[in-house]
Amino acid sequence: MASLKELGERELIRGIRNVIRQPPGLGPGDDSAVIPPFNGGVVACTDSVTLERHFPKGMTYEEFGWTAAAVNISDLAAMGAVPVGLLAALTMPPDLDSVSLYDIMAGMDECAEAFGAYIYGGDTKFGGGAVSCAAIGSLEGRTPMLRSGARPGDIVAVTGSLGSAAAGFFAIERGLEDLATSSQLFKPAPRVREGAALSASGAVTSCIDLSDGLAEGARSICGASRVGMDIHMAFLPEGEGVEDVSSETDVSKEEMMLYWGGDYELLFTFDKYKKEALYEHDVDFSVIGVVTNDDAPYINYFDKREAMGDGRH
Amino acid sequence: MASLKELGERELIRGIRNVIRQPPGLGPGDDSAVIPPFNGGVVACTDSVTLERHFPKGMTYEEFGWTAAAVNISDLAAMGAVPVGLLAALTMPPDLDSVSLYDIMAGMDECAEAFGAYIYGGDTKFGGGAVSCAAIGSLEGRTPMLRSGARPGDIVAVTGSLGSAAAGFFAIERGLEDLATSSQLFKPAPRVREGAALSASGAVTSCIDLSDGLAEGARSICGASRVGMDIHMAFLPEGEGVEDVSSETDVSKEEMMLYWGGDYELLFTFDKYKKEALYEHDVDFSVIGVVTNDDAPYINYFDKREAMGDGRH
Repeated sequence: MASLKELGERELIRGIRNVIRQPPGLGPGDDSAVIPPFNGGVVACTDSVTLERHFPKGMTYEEFGWTAAAVNISDLAAMGAVPVGLLAALTMPPDLDSVSLYDIMAGMDECAEAFGAYIYGGDTKFGGGAVSCAAIGSLEGRTPMLRSGARPGDIVAVTGSLGSAAAGFFAIERGLEDLATSSQLFKPAPRVREGAALSASGAVTSCIDLSDGLAEGARSICGASRVGMDIHMAFLPEGEGVEDVSSETDVSKEEMMLYWGGDYELLFTFDKYKKEALYEHDVDFSVIGVVTNDDAPYINYFDKREAMGDGRH
Repeated sequence: MASLKELGERELIRGIRNVIRQPPGLGPGDDSAVIPPFNGGVVACTDSVTLERHFPKGMTYEEFGWTAAAVNISDLAAMGAVPVGLLAALTMPPDLDSVSLYDIMAGMDECAEAFGAYIYGGDTKFGGGAVSCAAIGSLEGRTPMLRSGARPGDIVAVTGSLGSAAAGFFAIERGLEDLATSSQLFKPAPRVREGAALSASGAVTSCIDLSDGLAEGARSICGASRVGMDIHMAFLPEGEGVEDVSSETDVSKEEMMLYWGGDYELLFTFDKYKKEALYEHDVDFSVIGVVTNDDAPYINYFDKREAMGDGRH
């Protein structure tokens, strides 16, 4: 029998789908799920952060709590939902000092407040150091955005910029703290307003958040929509610190902008004849490519075209 | 600074309430919370089980997964809500074999199916061995039952029987496996139908589930309602195995029926003038005492009256 480590997350998800029933309604397999009996308005998701993996040097417990909330709120935003309530299940080492736990909860509540939600419940048990947050959101009458609606000919776009979380991470790791100017690494801001506006525009055909990086997000949309993408390196909006870190280290811009997560921007595709609707809904975005009838995303340089790699390098 | 272990769960919850905002709506501090923007119909809760604490000798991974779902569904039932969707966040040791993880998910889905719900989403990360489940339920138009509505003169009652989970636990611990006939320990059945019927009856003034035992549940209702209770030992419905285990070991019936959790029955109070409404709604229950104008629950024997102790002995 293979261990969890040997199988990896993607294979485990496939395995789990084989042993549980497929729920009714939209969205299982998307960033969040739409739960049917409530007139299509209730969207929910869950995601854990762990002290071992998501608590880098320099991060405070408040920022860890903020992040636990933000990663879930981002999953709601990718569907076009706004957060309403959070539930927080903490499994924490018994020798952790209580002030650190309160700091985690205060940071989580600060993030909830910033995006219009409340913490409605929780649970604390002794354990290995994880915050499992569940988020419940509302579509407010909008149609949910899925990963599966992209069609050849659609335009590929992203909100904000790419690579600043990675730049911050590598700056700290390589002892270049003065280059780590971005707050994106320690206090990521989910794109709630943008997600709601994208959904309301009626122009968007698919959407995902970039928690796992652009390449992984593009691959997910291509897989779910059975399409390809041509993304142009020169079009990618470069995040703060990317230039400086790439010139001071051996970490390339591609590594930071394509293959590293933590930016929590939205990657989406839209109907090219409905572009005006996006402007009318006041969304700032960058066009980065087109949807093709290929079966995977490609990254285009001036002189070459490469398949986008399998996750992080 | 005090560690989590030094402070204990009750004190931590108090501390957390001081650092986060009080959400609008009913139920924070109850078994579940009612989330307001969805016309009062959406109820949610979260609770974790850990391999270290909730996976006793003899339990299968399926049963562990069932339990992770059941403890949350029980929290919905205590409010009068029926489960609709579950979210499962697993933090599991990387060397766990994947079949065990699939078994956990299959057991969770089996419990969801038994009570009319689906698993809508999840997350798996490497960690210490916890399943944090969040449950979303519907009140279907009923008024939620809270812990805070008990009034002096109300009747105190419980569904089902008490102590069979404890009897099963002690039977196994003391090597008396042939006495461990109850499934309540490994596959607890939350009282979903009963909770909905109690809520629909309009007779119930407060309700809680007995995940932490009768004494703890009674203390919670008394604290939230600012009342006392006189509970009569002779009235308590004795669970399967309690008699046998108490006669074969040094564990008393009081220990199993008052101070040990895991039975997942509902403890509730009702308006004595509305008792007929409970029968009309087809609920089986045992009257165990009355609500008083004291400030804590007491347990009455033929010849003495004692304050109910502080949690488990």
